[in-house]
Amino acid sequence: MEYVMHPIGVIHSPFTDKIKTPIQPSRSTAKGTIEIFSGFAEGLADVDGFSHIILLYVFHCSSGYELRVKPFLDNQLRGLFATRHPHRPNPIGMSIVRMLSCRKNVLEIEGVDVLDNTPLLDIKPYVPDFDVKTGVRTGWYEVRNMRNDE
Amino acid sequence: MEYVMHPIGVIHSPFTDKIKTPIQPSRSTAKGTIEIFSGFAEGLADVDGFSHIILLYVFHCSSGYELRVKPFLDNQLRGLFATRHPHRPNPIGMSIVRMLSCRKNVLEIEGVDVLDNTPLLDIKPYVPDFDVKTGVRTGWYEVRNMRNDE
Repeated sequence: MEYVMHPIGVIHSPFTDKIKTPIQPSRSTAKGTIEIFSGFAEGLADVDGFSHIILLYVFHCSSGYELRVKPFLDNQLRGLFATRHPHRPNPIGMSIVRMLSCRKNVLEIEGVDVLDNTPLLDIKPYVPDFDVKTGVRTGWYEVRNMRNDE
Repeated sequence: MEYVMHPIGVIHSPFTDKIKTPIQPSRSTAKGTIEIFSGFAEGLADVDGFSHIILLYVFHCSSGYELRVKPFLDNQLRGLFATRHPHRPNPIGMSIVRMLSCRKNVLEIEGVDVLDNTPLLDIKPYVPDFDVKTGVRTGWYEVRNMRNDE
């Protein structure tokens, strides 16, 4: 079975070099813009009421994948699905960014961590009632933090 | 441009009827299982260290979309991208669920809000440092809550 996805827009960012792109939006204050293709602009109604949006996009510069990878934030091989590594069987990225403005088909965003010209697949509203969990453990990421705190 | 996605596994849930499926995992205590296709099982290493995982999947029973929809939790038409409605140009769903166990290629999860046999595209670890935002406004969703509190 296969599913064919078509971009609904494109994300513009200051980053044209993978090496210099921030690892996660929480580590980035970079601004960017999202251009939604005009046929989809009507779907942006009411988005301006939300402070944050979830972006689903294509890691368009990533091809192929390995099932054990070294995360950017760690120095050991980890199972791919325990990481946010961009080389994945389905190269879909997810980032939550702050929205600065929403005019017609253009959104200004802050906290961008993607390469310029990233194809956008979907926008969803960020809703803490759905998206914030408590009692969280974060495996290797947590241990890595503890090491750094020592 | 188009991007072809192939499932890495399937989500089993108690829900076989769209109408009876919970709206969001935070409103569900239902348990389910994820079966990862054997070729991808190695990528599950280290996932057991995480209490919560982000699932990206296909809304496989949704076809077509409209750019203004009535959210399940509201009674007014809203821009599609300001909602989590399953009928989307790229029908990708996102849910954050609690992981109960991870053995070989099978994950037991809690907080399932998807239909049985949902095709799974990706698993990412849930990391509050990346995924929890502060100073959040939630537009129509917030107003709806206020109405209900009255």
